[in-house]
Amino acid sequence: MKENLKDLNLDALFIGDKSENGDIYKRLTNKLIDEHLGWRQNYMPQDQPIMKADEKNEESFKTTVAHMEDVLSDLSVRLRTNSVPWHSPRFWGHMNTETLMPALLAYNYAMLWNGNNVAYESSPGTSIMEEEVGEDFAQLFSYKEGWGHIVADGSIANLEGLWYARNMKSIPLALKEVVPETVAGKSEWELLNMSVDEIMNILDGLDGEVVDAVKAKSARSGENLHKLGKWLIPQTKHYSWMKAADIIGIGLDQVIPVPVDSHYQMDMAELEKIVRNLAAENTPVLGVVGVVGSTEEGAVDPIHKIVALREKLLAEGIFYYIHVDAAYGGYARSLFLDENFDFIPYNELKDVHQEHGVYQEDVEYITEEVHAAFDAISKTESVTIDPHKMGYIPYSAGGIAIRDKKMRNIISYFATYVFDKDSVAPSLLGAYILEGSKAGATAAGVWTAHRVLPLNVTGYGKLEGRSVEASRRFYEFLQGLEFDVNGTTIEVNPLTEPDFNMVDWTFNVKGNKDLVKMNELNKVFYDYASANKGGSYDNEFITSHTDFAIPEYGDSPLEYVKSMGFTEEEWRRADKVTILRACVLTPFMYDKDNFAEYAGKIKEAIQAKLEKSLSEVKF
Amino acid sequence: MKENLKDLNLDALFIGDKSENGDIYKRLTNKLIDEHLGWRQNYMPQDQPIMKADEKNEESFKTTVAHMEDVLSDLSVRLRTNSVPWHSPRFWGHMNTETLMPALLAYNYAMLWNGNNVAYESSPGTSIMEEEVGEDFAQLFSYKEGWGHIVADGSIANLEGLWYARNMKSIPLALKEVVPETVAGKSEWELLNMSVDEIMNILDGLDGEVVDAVKAKSARSGENLHKLGKWLIPQTKHYSWMKAADIIGIGLDQVIPVPVDSHYQMDMAELEKIVRNLAAENTPVLGVVGVVGSTEEGAVDPIHKIVALREKLLAEGIFYYIHVDAAYGGYARSLFLDENFDFIPYNELKDVHQEHGVYQEDVEYITEEVHAAFDAISKTESVTIDPHKMGYIPYSAGGIAIRDKKMRNIISYFATYVFDKDSVAPSLLGAYILEGSKAGATAAGVWTAHRVLPLNVTGYGKLEGRSVEASRRFYEFLQGLEFDVNGTTIEVNPLTEPDFNMVDWTFNVKGNKDLVKMNELNKVFYDYASANKGGSYDNEFITSHTDFAIPEYGDSPLEYVKSMGFTEEEWRRADKVTILRACVLTPFMYDKDNFAEYAGKIKEAIQAKLEKSLSEVKF
Repeated sequence: MKENLKDLNLDALFIGDKSENGDIYKRLTNKLIDEHLGWRQNYMPQDQPIMKADEKNEESFKTTVAHMEDVLSDLSVRLRTNSVPWHSPRFWGHMNTETLMPALLAYNYAMLWNGNNVAYESSPGTSIMEEEVGEDFAQLFSYKEGWGHIVADGSIANLEGLWYARNMKSIPLALKEVVPETVAGKSEWELLNMSVDEIMNILDGLDGEVVDAVKAKSARSGENLHKLGKWLIPQTKHYSWMKAADIIGIGLDQVIPVPVDSHYQMDMAELEKIVRNLAAENTPVLGVVGVVGSTEEGAVDPIHKIVALREKLLAEGIFYYIHVDAAYGGYARSLFLDENFDFIPYNELKDVHQEHGVYQEDVEYITEEVHAAFDAISKTESVTIDPHKMGYIPYSAGGIAIRDKKMRNIISYFATYVFDKDSVAPSLLGAYILEGSKAGATAAGVWTAHRVLPLNVTGYGKLEGRSVEASRRFYEFLQGLEFDVNGTTIEVNPLTEPDFNMVDWTFNVKGNKDLVKMNELNKVFYDYASANKGGSYDNEFITSHTDFAIPEYGDSPLEYVKSMGFTEEEWRRADKVTILRACVLTPFMYDKDNFAEYAGKIKEAIQAKLEKSLSEVKF
Repeated sequence: MKENLKDLNLDALFIGDKSENGDIYKRLTNKLIDEHLGWRQNYMPQDQPIMKADEKNEESFKTTVAHMEDVLSDLSVRLRTNSVPWHSPRFWGHMNTETLMPALLAYNYAMLWNGNNVAYESSPGTSIMEEEVGEDFAQLFSYKEGWGHIVADGSIANLEGLWYARNMKSIPLALKEVVPETVAGKSEWELLNMSVDEIMNILDGLDGEVVDAVKAKSARSGENLHKLGKWLIPQTKHYSWMKAADIIGIGLDQVIPVPVDSHYQMDMAELEKIVRNLAAENTPVLGVVGVVGSTEEGAVDPIHKIVALREKLLAEGIFYYIHVDAAYGGYARSLFLDENFDFIPYNELKDVHQEHGVYQEDVEYITEEVHAAFDAISKTESVTIDPHKMGYIPYSAGGIAIRDKKMRNIISYFATYVFDKDSVAPSLLGAYILEGSKAGATAAGVWTAHRVLPLNVTGYGKLEGRSVEASRRFYEFLQGLEFDVNGTTIEVNPLTEPDFNMVDWTFNVKGNKDLVKMNELNKVFYDYASANKGGSYDNEFITSHTDFAIPEYGDSPLEYVKSMGFTEEEWRRADKVTILRACVLTPFMYDKDNFAEYAGKIKEAIQAKLEKSLSEVKF
C-alpha cells in the first residue's frame, strides 16, 4: 500500500453533489458487507445456523420484516423532508458538507462488529486503530512525545483539556504535602507557577506509590480548586468553555474573557495586562485558551504570541498552561507539513503548495501570522481537534492530543504502564480519558481516512486547501457586489479577509445609517436563506447567521461597523451587528469554473431573497 | 404503521449468527442508499453534476479509488483478524452481542446526511427524533413530567447526573444569597436538606432574571462545593463514579462507598447508618447512587428501599438526591410495562409475560424484590440508560432521563423556553446537556429501534426476556456440572442466582482448599477462553473474567467463598476471588433446543480448556 500517493484525486473520495460516485459507494458497501457476513458464517463452520430457512416463511417473520420496513420508510420520509442539502454548491452555511466516502464505508463496516474501544479486550482491532489515530494527532501537531485519542466531541475534548490543566496546576501543592523535599523552598506562588515540564520531571523521579499519593492530594481530591487561579478564554466565550468551567468545579467566576481585536483574534496587549494584573494581586493563571478557527469567524488566535508571552513571563516566575481549541481548524495544520511531516517554513510554503497542487491559483492564501500560530501549537500542552469538522469525518468524532504522553498520569485511574503485553493500546482506555464506552467504528472511520489522506500536504493538506481556496473565491465574489431591488441598491460588505475558510458578510441598503434596520434586513434574509422561511429541499441558496453583540464582542466589530458608515453612537444603540456566515467546507468550489457556474445561480437566488426581504423590512 | 405489533418475531431483527438474514440486511441497505442518492440528485435537478463522467477515466481518479480500496482491504483484514465472535452462541463473555438490524440500517442511512443534533438548525429531522427518544426514556421510567436525551456513553451520563445533583444541592444556598425571603428562617442544614420538589417549586415562582442570578450563585460559580456533602455509591465503586467525582470538582474525598451484601446489592442497614452518622456530624448527603445491573454481577440495588429510606429521613429533615445508574439494566424496565406503558403489578407479571410470549418456559424469572426496585425508579431524580447495552444498539449510544423536565434549567446555559417555534426540539440542545456536537445518526438508530420494538412487553420486553431466560439456562447448565480431567474432578460453582442476566462462576478442583490456586486456575482458564491464549476467531468458547477483591468488595464474597469450603483465613490470605463472567445478551439461546445443541459444544470446549489449564496450574 502506497502511503503517500502522488496525485491524489480528491473528487474520487466523495459521493458527490449529484451522487456522481454513488456507484462506487454502493459497490464497496456491498463488498464490505459480504466480507462481514462471510466472517460470521465461517466462524466454526461446523455449527449449523440457528435460524432455519423455513422460519422466514412464517407469518410472524414476514410481518416483522414488513413492520421494520415501514418504520425505515417513515425514517426515510422524515430525513428526506427535514434535512439540509449541504451537499450542494448552493449551500454556504453552517459547518456541514460532504464527508469522506472512505470514512463512511469504514464506519459502516466496523459497526457490524460493534467494538467498544473502552477496553482492548472487547475491540482488539479498533483499539489499535485508535492508538494509531492518536499518534496521527500527535504528529499533526509536532508533539514529539505526544499522545491523543478520539473524543465524542469538541466540548468534551475541551473539558478534558481543562481537566488536565486543573489537575496539573494542583500537583505542586500536593507535592508540598506528600513529598515536601521535592519542592523545598518554594512559596505557594512559586508552586502555583511551576511549569508543566518541571512538574513532570519531579513526578518522573518518584516511585509509583508516591505518585499515587500525590495524585490523591491533587485537585481530584476536591481540595485547592480555588487556589489554582483564573482560566482565560477569548472574549467571544464559546459556551462550551463556560460549561467546562462549571462542570470541572473551578466555576464560572474563575473564567476571565480576554478581549479580541478587530480581526477577532485574542488581543495580546490585553492578555499581558490581565496576567500581570492578576499576578500583582497574587492570583495565578490556571491556563490560557487560544482558539484556532473560531466558530463564528474562523479566526486564528496568535498562538505563537501566547507561547512567547509565556516564555517571557516564565523568566519572571509566572506560568500558565496553554490549551488550544483547534476543534475547527486543527486539520488545517496538514497544510504546513511536508511529506515527511516536517513543518514547512513560510518562505517555502507557496512553492510546496504549488508542487503538490494544494491550490489551483498560483498564490498563498495563508498569512505568515496564521502560519506562525499553527507552528506554535507544538509548544502548547494540549489541543482539541475534531475529525467531524475539517476532517470531513461523519459525526461524532472529536479528538484531543497532549504534548507529553506521560501527562496522562495526571488524570488516569490506573498506572500508565497497564498495557497488554502484545498490544500497543492500553488495556483499559477508559481509565485514561474522560469517557467510557466508545464506538470502535469511529476509530475505524478516522483511521481509514487518515490512511487514505495522510495528514500533510500530500493528503489532507490538499483537502484543506480546497476549502481555503473556495472561501477566497466566495469572499472575492462578495467584494463590491451590489444588487438592484426595484431601484434600491443593496451593497454587500464582507467582514475581514478570512484567516482560514469562514466568510462573514452583511447586506445593507446603500446609504442606510440605521444599524438596527440593517440587522433586521440580514435577519430576514437569513430566514429566507434557511428552513425558517425558505424551506430546505426547495431552497436555492442556504446560509447561516450569527450576532456580534457588545456583551460578547465588546467593540471588536466597531471598525467593521464604522467602515460601512455607521457612527459609534449607532453601534451602541443597536448593541449588535447581525452577520451572515458561511463555513466554506465544500470540496468542489475551489475550482474556478465550478465556482463561476454557481456564482450566477447564487446571485440569482440572493436577488430573489433580497426582494422578499425588502418587502418585509421597510427602509 | 402498527405501533404495537402482536407476535413480533425477534429473529427477523438480527443479521444472525450465521448471517441467516444477511440477504435482508443487504436488500434494505441498498434500498436506503438509493433513496439517499436520489435525494442528492433531485435537489435542484436543473443543476448539472460537478463531476463529469469522463473524470472517472482519468488515471488519478482510478489510482485514488484503488488506493482507497487497498486501505479498506487493510481495514477488513485487521477487523476480521482481531475481532471477537460475539455473534456466536459460543460466546459467553463481555457485554457484547448482535445488535438490532433496524438500528444498524437507520444509523447507516442517517449518517449519509451527517446531521449534528447539537443544534436544530443543522439536523431538523434527527433532532426531533432525539426529542422523541427522550420521551421514550421518560416513559420507560414512568417519569410523567420527565425528559431525556442520548449521551455519548454511560460515564458521561453518570457525570451529567452528578452535575444535576451538585448544582441542585447548591441552589438553596444561592437562594439564600439572592432572594433570602424565599428560604426565610432556614438554617444552613435545612437549606442543604431541601427536597428537589421544594427547590423546583421556589424556582418556579421566580422571574427569569432572578433565576439566572440564582444560577450564577449556584455551584456553577465554583463556590460552596465543599458544603454540599457526600456522594454515596456502592462499594464496588465503578471507576466511572470515581472519575465523575474528580471531574465535577467535589472530589474523591467526598465519595463514600456503601457496603454491598452477599448478593452484591447495596446493604440498606449500612446506608442508613452512614447517612445518620453523617447527619450527626452535620454533613449532608449530596446524593445516593443505586445501580440497576452492576457491570460485574448484574446485581440490582433495592431502589425501592433507597427511596423509602429517603421518605423516612425526610420527616427527620434529611434529604438526598437519588441517581440510578441503570446504564446496563435500564431497558429491562420494559419487562414491567404493559402495552399501555403502565407498570404491571407483580402478581400479574407472570401471566402478562406468558400472554406476550416473553419467556418460553411457564415461569417468572424476576423476583418481587427486583420488580419493586425497577418500579421505584420513577421516584428518583435521574437515571442513566445505555441503548448500546441492553438496548441492542451499536456503540456509542448512552442516555439519561430526568424526572422533571424543568430540572434542565439547573444546568442549562440559556432559558429553557428557547425552542424553535415550529419544533418540539430545543434550538440548541448543546445548551441543556454536557456534550456539544452529537451524531444525528445515533438518534435515528435508537429512534428506529424504539419504533420497531416499543419499550414495553410487546417489544423490548420480549428481547430482555430472551436474555433473562438464556442466562437462567446457562446458570442451570452450570449448576452441579463437573468435569473429569485425567482423573481429577473439576467442579463448577455458580455465584448467586442472577438478578437479571449476568452469570458468574468459578471452577475448582474438588476438595481443593487453596483459594490462591483456585484463582490461578480460573485466570488460566480465562486466558484460554479469550484472545490472551485461546485466539479469537478459532476459539471454541469465549468468556470474560473479573476479580472480587477485598479492597473493592469487602467481605461480600465471603459467603460464596465459604460455600465452596474455604475458610475465612484462606479468604483473607488470597484477598480476592477470581470470577468467570458471562453477560448473557444472546437473543437466541433462550430457546431450549438451541441451548441444548450448544450446551454439548460448550461442554466439550470447556473440557479441552480445563485440560490445558490443569497442565499449567498444578494441584
